[in-house]
Amino acid sequence: MLNSKSETNHMDLQAYLKSHQQTINAALGDLVREDTNLATRIVQAMQYSLLAGSKRLRPILAIAAAEAIQGDTAAVLPAACAIEMIHTYSLIHDDLPAMDNDLLRRGQPTSHVHFDEATAILAGDALLTRAFEVISEQKDAKPKDASRQLRVIQILARAAGYEGMIQGQMLDMDSAGQQLDLKSLKALHQKKTGALIEASVMIGTLYGNADDEALTALRSYANLIGLAFQVVDDVLNVSGDPARLGKAVGTDSVKKKNTFPGLLGLEKARMYARDLVQKALISLKIFDTQADPLRTIATYITERDH
Amino acid sequence: MLNSKSETNHMDLQAYLKSHQQTINAALGDLVREDTNLATRIVQAMQYSLLAGSKRLRPILAIAAAEAIQGDTAAVLPAACAIEMIHTYSLIHDDLPAMDNDLLRRGQPTSHVHFDEATAILAGDALLTRAFEVISEQKDAKPKDASRQLRVIQILARAAGYEGMIQGQMLDMDSAGQQLDLKSLKALHQKKTGALIEASVMIGTLYGNADDEALTALRSYANLIGLAFQVVDDVLNVSGDPARLGKAVGTDSVKKKNTFPGLLGLEKARMYARDLVQKALISLKIFDTQADPLRTIATYITERDH
Repeated sequence: MLNSKSETNHMDLQAYLKSHQQTINAALGDLVREDTNLATRIVQAMQYSLLAGSKRLRPILAIAAAEAIQGDTAAVLPAACAIEMIHTYSLIHDDLPAMDNDLLRRGQPTSHVHFDEATAILAGDALLTRAFEVISEQKDAKPKDASRQLRVIQILARAAGYEGMIQGQMLDMDSAGQQLDLKSLKALHQKKTGALIEASVMIGTLYGNADDEALTALRSYANLIGLAFQVVDDVLNVSGDPARLGKAVGTDSVKKKNTFPGLLGLEKARMYARDLVQKALISLKIFDTQADPLRTIATYITERDH
Repeated sequence: MLNSKSETNHMDLQAYLKSHQQTINAALGDLVREDTNLATRIVQAMQYSLLAGSKRLRPILAIAAAEAIQGDTAAVLPAACAIEMIHTYSLIHDDLPAMDNDLLRRGQPTSHVHFDEATAILAGDALLTRAFEVISEQKDAKPKDASRQLRVIQILARAAGYEGMIQGQMLDMDSAGQQLDLKSLKALHQKKTGALIEASVMIGTLYGNADDEALTALRSYANLIGLAFQVVDDVLNVSGDPARLGKAVGTDSVKKKNTFPGLLGLEKARMYARDLVQKALISLKIFDTQADPLRTIATYITERDH
């Protein structure tokens, strides 16, 4: 699948991702700190999951979307961190015994295994709450920025809430053991995974001046890569390497989850993901080289092995 | 304990509470509605806990605090509803088997009993998320109100988060079976219950013009009644009527929780609550009759049987 051009892109991407991951990790570390006045275990549990190895795909998408419209990328950072906190909380809760009962995540025992169930529930709650606090309290924000901060909170809450990600998790659990068609499976994942990925991109656009054409293009891009990401996630759950993935494989099949390889077959699912990414790249055609990070991230989604 | 004056107050209070409860209940019903495009169970689970019988103490405190400073009480309503959503989410999660494992709440089976554990976790997550969404999206808000909405989110997130309510729940569970002294027990409950009650009052003050003296007085009032409320809660867990309370009694003792009656004895705990309420009333001495609702709520806290 690779040619020399995409290999070059791939190498650039690694440096790009690493640099942004470092920035995000440092910021996350600053935002959740131990305080001697506090019971340390709740903070340790927040840090345990939040600072574990992660691709930081969602916060990087927010920053890359701001880059695509020549926005203020430094100003996106707190919102980007809030997005990662919400993503992490959702992983902690989804992994709980009452939900997906997963034991391994981001290369380490899940929160309820390492700590206990009560601590895992509270750490998730705390990260979700902290996300909104972080956006509301940005120290450098000017009064005129307040409307933008509110808009970030609105987009994020809607994407993460009962009409978005939580709805998707509910549908995912409820549909286990039933046979969904492709349309229903896409709708499920548009909520479960897609909503927060789309929110990440759209939040990035708030930090620059995007016209309607750019917004439509970026929303389309986000929708397509969100779905592609989930298809690849399903593929890797069948054919991936647990050591690289940092989580168990084969679990979807055991839990009778509806998946794209289950519905389409492994090879067709892979082709479907590539097709979605091609369409995502076409969505970006109105942009100049500023959208190259978004382009390489899209390509990375189908090439990744974790 | 009652005299003719407090009886009159008490009757006024019943009408005051009922009227505000109706307003809040109607607003909450509007804010969490079923949508045919959504899986209905998550919305039903949110409604089940949110719309069950409740005193609505926290949202009423927010409105009463605005009244005390002649503020815009209608404008407080969305924030007041958000506070109740956060309170309700905390009850759902605290009741989970991994936490306090309670079976009855607000006169009905707890969420995880009526639905299941996964649904209860998600319903709590959804109410917490919806709270922040509601504050961020107020339809009637003007751009100049954005800073106030952000400030509400900040106060609420801080009170509910890992430095506040979540910290308190963690301390409460961790200290079960250990003997805390009065200072530590007060510190625990300042976080577990007090932080959100204080936040309710302080959020109310954002909807009017409170000077520093008024803010200091109201903060002191909130601190004192927050603690009094918890002391009475502990007392009712020993001596209350489960039918009136809508939840089981005697559970603190079974779980070896640290409580005020456990530490002070039942009668001294009752006296302690009355003393706190007297001090709360003294805090309000700078206010005219506009603070009468706050005064009667304070008195109600020690007189209540549920």
